[in-house]
Amino acid sequence: MPNIRLVLEYDGRGFHGWQKQPGLRTIQGELERVLPLVLRSRIGRVNAAGRTDAGVHARGQVVNFLVDRPVEELPELRKVKHAVSHLLRGEVAVLSAEFVPDDFDARGNALCKQYSYLILHRDAPAVLDRGRAWFVFSKLNLEKMQAEAAFLSGVHDFSSLRGPDCESESAVREILKSELVWRDPYLIYRVVGRGFLKQMVRNIVGTLVGLGKGNLRLKSMAEILEAKTRLAGGVTAPPYGLYLDWVKY
Amino acid sequence: MPNIRLVLEYDGRGFHGWQKQPGLRTIQGELERVLPLVLRSRIGRVNAAGRTDAGVHARGQVVNFLVDRPVEELPELRKVKHAVSHLLRGEVAVLSAEFVPDDFDARGNALCKQYSYLILHRDAPAVLDRGRAWFVFSKLNLEKMQAEAAFLSGVHDFSSLRGPDCESESAVREILKSELVWRDPYLIYRVVGRGFLKQMVRNIVGTLVGLGKGNLRLKSMAEILEAKTRLAGGVTAPPYGLYLDWVKY
Repeated sequence: MPNIRLVLEYDGRGFHGWQKQPGLRTIQGELERVLPLVLRSRIGRVNAAGRTDAGVHARGQVVNFLVDRPVEELPELRKVKHAVSHLLRGEVAVLSAEFVPDDFDARGNALCKQYSYLILHRDAPAVLDRGRAWFVFSKLNLEKMQAEAAFLSGVHDFSSLRGPDCESESAVREILKSELVWRDPYLIYRVVGRGFLKQMVRNIVGTLVGLGKGNLRLKSMAEILEAKTRLAGGVTAPPYGLYLDWVKY
Repeated sequence: MPNIRLVLEYDGRGFHGWQKQPGLRTIQGELERVLPLVLRSRIGRVNAAGRTDAGVHARGQVVNFLVDRPVEELPELRKVKHAVSHLLRGEVAVLSAEFVPDDFDARGNALCKQYSYLILHRDAPAVLDRGRAWFVFSKLNLEKMQAEAAFLSGVHDFSSLRGPDCESESAVREILKSELVWRDPYLIYRVVGRGFLKQMVRNIVGTLVGLGKGNLRLKSMAEILEAKTRLAGGVTAPPYGLYLDWVKY
């Protein structure tokens, strides 16, 4: 059975996240609805490298799925790509489509991935970045935030920064890169890791903002991680500032 | 009478352009509706540095207006700024508000202004940039386009690139800067000038794209300007890729 990989851009606002759920509009659900129409074939489950939450965007989500029909009988992938982008226009675009070896698994084979989070930091609300960035008006200690972001590189126990319904056995994760850059009026947080816990990036960002405002009880990321309780962290940053940028294999 | 200057960001999509028109929603019309409520005073006409067309965005439009009430009786401008951004939320944000000398005129006193135009150049349609960039899929000769963009610096007769209902007496304009940069997947055109003719920037961009595709009868901007007829130019690029970036005084 042919195995197809797609790279996707999507606007998370109109979806209840990646994962298929009965009665809700999700990216996986929409792809599993339109791909059989375009390919004129049954398909297997669509697997994604990152199962993004409701409202989270992607610039380079990677997915794969098996097709129940031989390659020779399938339409050209160039056409599949344009057809899917057209059927889900304005919300999902297929950036590339290709056949991959049978054993390729978008989720299992990912070496690392990057998420970025966009904060609009000025005293006027978002207009051109509405639905694309978190508007944070409060005075922030940017140097402190940058140092605390950099601290996260390496292996840590993220119990304090995992979502309440996170089901992973271990909360230990390795972060390969964690940086916060200031490009007036934007604060851009970028994090690269092999795997992430549920809501982890949004909790990191909310905690960095809390540390920057100086309104958390504990005053450093080190102390917050050490506490190993979600109560120690900051708020969960809203989903619409978060982007899955790319996945490496 | 106090004279107030505002710097504005706006999303042009919900408006029939800057200029007030009976029965249509325009930026000038909306400001002239909400400013008297916020200031609790009658106000004069709101003048803008650039009268943007329907659908065109602004990152730094500058406007001014006179207020029919002494400064001491007006609310703090910080509050005016937030109130206007709130009343027109998501569509117009006031980036700054200040009192200016009586004779300040946002349009008449502008020394120069910059417009930029965003083209999304790849083979998948816009999702995250939807309504913010012109999607151009065709193969383009970027080097040719960059050279033709640079050619526009200096004084030229823009008869070939003015809108059909442009009412300016002279079509001669001085361009202080004209450049096209490629930042994959974006082509960004930036132009600085003292004044612009109606639809001039969108016609420049449409013509650059026509030259890049190689589908215009005349093969250079020099020949097109020399022809002095709109028929020689390319298409009018769509309004939603155009931004008024800033105005200098």
